[in-house]
Amino acid sequence: MIDQLIANIKKTNAPIVVGLDPMMKFIPGHITRAAFAEYGETLQGAAEAIWQYNKGIVDAVCDLIPAVKPQIAMYEQFGVEGVAVFRKTVEYCKHKGLVVIGDVKRGDIGSTSEAYAVGHLGRVTVGSKSYAPFDEDFATVNPYLGSDGINPFIKVCREEKKGIFVLVKTSNPSSGEVQDRMVDGRPLYEIMGEQVARWGSECMGETYSAVGAVVGATYPEQGKILRRIMPKTYILVPGYGAQGGKGADLVHFFNDDGLGAIINSSRGIIAAWQQEAYARFGEDGYADASRQAVLDMREDIARALASR
Amino acid sequence: MIDQLIANIKKTNAPIVVGLDPMMKFIPGHITRAAFAEYGETLQGAAEAIWQYNKGIVDAVCDLIPAVKPQIAMYEQFGVEGVAVFRKTVEYCKHKGLVVIGDVKRGDIGSTSEAYAVGHLGRVTVGSKSYAPFDEDFATVNPYLGSDGINPFIKVCREEKKGIFVLVKTSNPSSGEVQDRMVDGRPLYEIMGEQVARWGSECMGETYSAVGAVVGATYPEQGKILRRIMPKTYILVPGYGAQGGKGADLVHFFNDDGLGAIINSSRGIIAAWQQEAYARFGEDGYADASRQAVLDMREDIARALASR
Repeated sequence: MIDQLIANIKKTNAPIVVGLDPMMKFIPGHITRAAFAEYGETLQGAAEAIWQYNKGIVDAVCDLIPAVKPQIAMYEQFGVEGVAVFRKTVEYCKHKGLVVIGDVKRGDIGSTSEAYAVGHLGRVTVGSKSYAPFDEDFATVNPYLGSDGINPFIKVCREEKKGIFVLVKTSNPSSGEVQDRMVDGRPLYEIMGEQVARWGSECMGETYSAVGAVVGATYPEQGKILRRIMPKTYILVPGYGAQGGKGADLVHFFNDDGLGAIINSSRGIIAAWQQEAYARFGEDGYADASRQAVLDMREDIARALASR
Repeated sequence: MIDQLIANIKKTNAPIVVGLDPMMKFIPGHITRAAFAEYGETLQGAAEAIWQYNKGIVDAVCDLIPAVKPQIAMYEQFGVEGVAVFRKTVEYCKHKGLVVIGDVKRGDIGSTSEAYAVGHLGRVTVGSKSYAPFDEDFATVNPYLGSDGINPFIKVCREEKKGIFVLVKTSNPSSGEVQDRMVDGRPLYEIMGEQVARWGSECMGETYSAVGAVVGATYPEQGKILRRIMPKTYILVPGYGAQGGKGADLVHFFNDDGLGAIINSSRGIIAAWQQEAYARFGEDGYADASRQAVLDMREDIARALASR
């Protein structure tokens, strides 16, 4: 699947992943009204609004981008109905030819981690049959519990040709509370980066590993170091746009081959219509606003990479 | 809710939580056959089997224990249908007077962590209405992303009188890869323990905080230290039984008031019928076997506490 992701990136010439992290306040009024008219102000109504909103955006941007990253929390908050729309969104995006990174940040141990891996990336056995319950292509994974938590994911990645992105240095202000702690004179995220490279060596694609890493755009200096520590690791970079990361901050996340990183933007794309720069599209044109925001992001990154 | 948990523990005289972590291989054949006869070998069939199995165990043990801890991974692996049974199990257990600790190990940042907090412990807004989608009493939370990930949970805990257990020192063999790293001469789990105590001071119940910690029974020496560092923190202790923790290992997790810790057992209770010690109950008597295993565990812990 890492090879598929890279093929998609090369084809679109856009190392971009759109974060499908819907919040009710992003959804145009006409979509919400129609959903509530059909299902009432219920969890199902909210889920339906999210679904229609997602579909509009995906239809508008799918030819421009290699991948999407739905954040499951934004669906899970609407309960079982929300989780059903997460599933439906994954399926729809794959049908559109997109690689789907499930931003689930799961992490547990042994048979429990295996259950998450099977549920999100693999197939679960029921009697004599088997099913792929959520069937994302990649999942994000939390490494706080160590190898016991990661190995079951790696096993499923190998069996099913899927991939993971392990949290190494996250984009948020407080990520340093744990991740920057100095261990034998080096920050924990560096040690984690080395560990990710080791895990990754067990499941290589053609040029990069199926075990990637999450490193926030908001920490460009750390990104530079981690790029060196993990040369064959794809880096998923959140924090561009709304969280403050800029095109120029991103260059060090890439390798000299122009690959090795994929930049996420969530509300910068999906809620573009609410920003001044795209206000001209209006509420009804929210999907076109998202398309324009993708084009602008692509140019911003291309410009930064060209001038490095 | 921490006060309710303590009241339940005092009432039952059992600092025990039963981990409802169903695996298909634990479920007696007659339950699985009936579920498959009704729904086929489908995700719904698996979910129905889990539901009937859970109900049997909960009915058999609910008067003996203060709390249950369903592990969501074991439900999530069966997709949307599995998640629906997780929800149903939470609801059923609460109806039976049990405190429900959702073992979800969620952890993200900002609005995403807020979505998890709202979905699992709080209420989500849909138009002019609001809903409690999963409505557990407590949730387990992963601290790798720092305060940005924990604060949204603390906010919901205060508003809704709920609680969390933060992963500090997990029970698995590889937990030390991250958690034991030496930071300024001290292991990371100690620093995390201090942080949990600080977070906890913001939402105190009568005697203990609504912010608890997870510390594995498999690490009694570390438990002793953490008990001292976090005097007002309830410790959720996994790893008893199947993972190798023994009654004698547990005493240091408790405070002198006999409180401060709650010990989890999952397969040791719910799959008791498959163990030699309880084979006499047979497959049909699986729920009675679970009841006997709870009684034995209660005695084991009481004996260990009495002889300390």
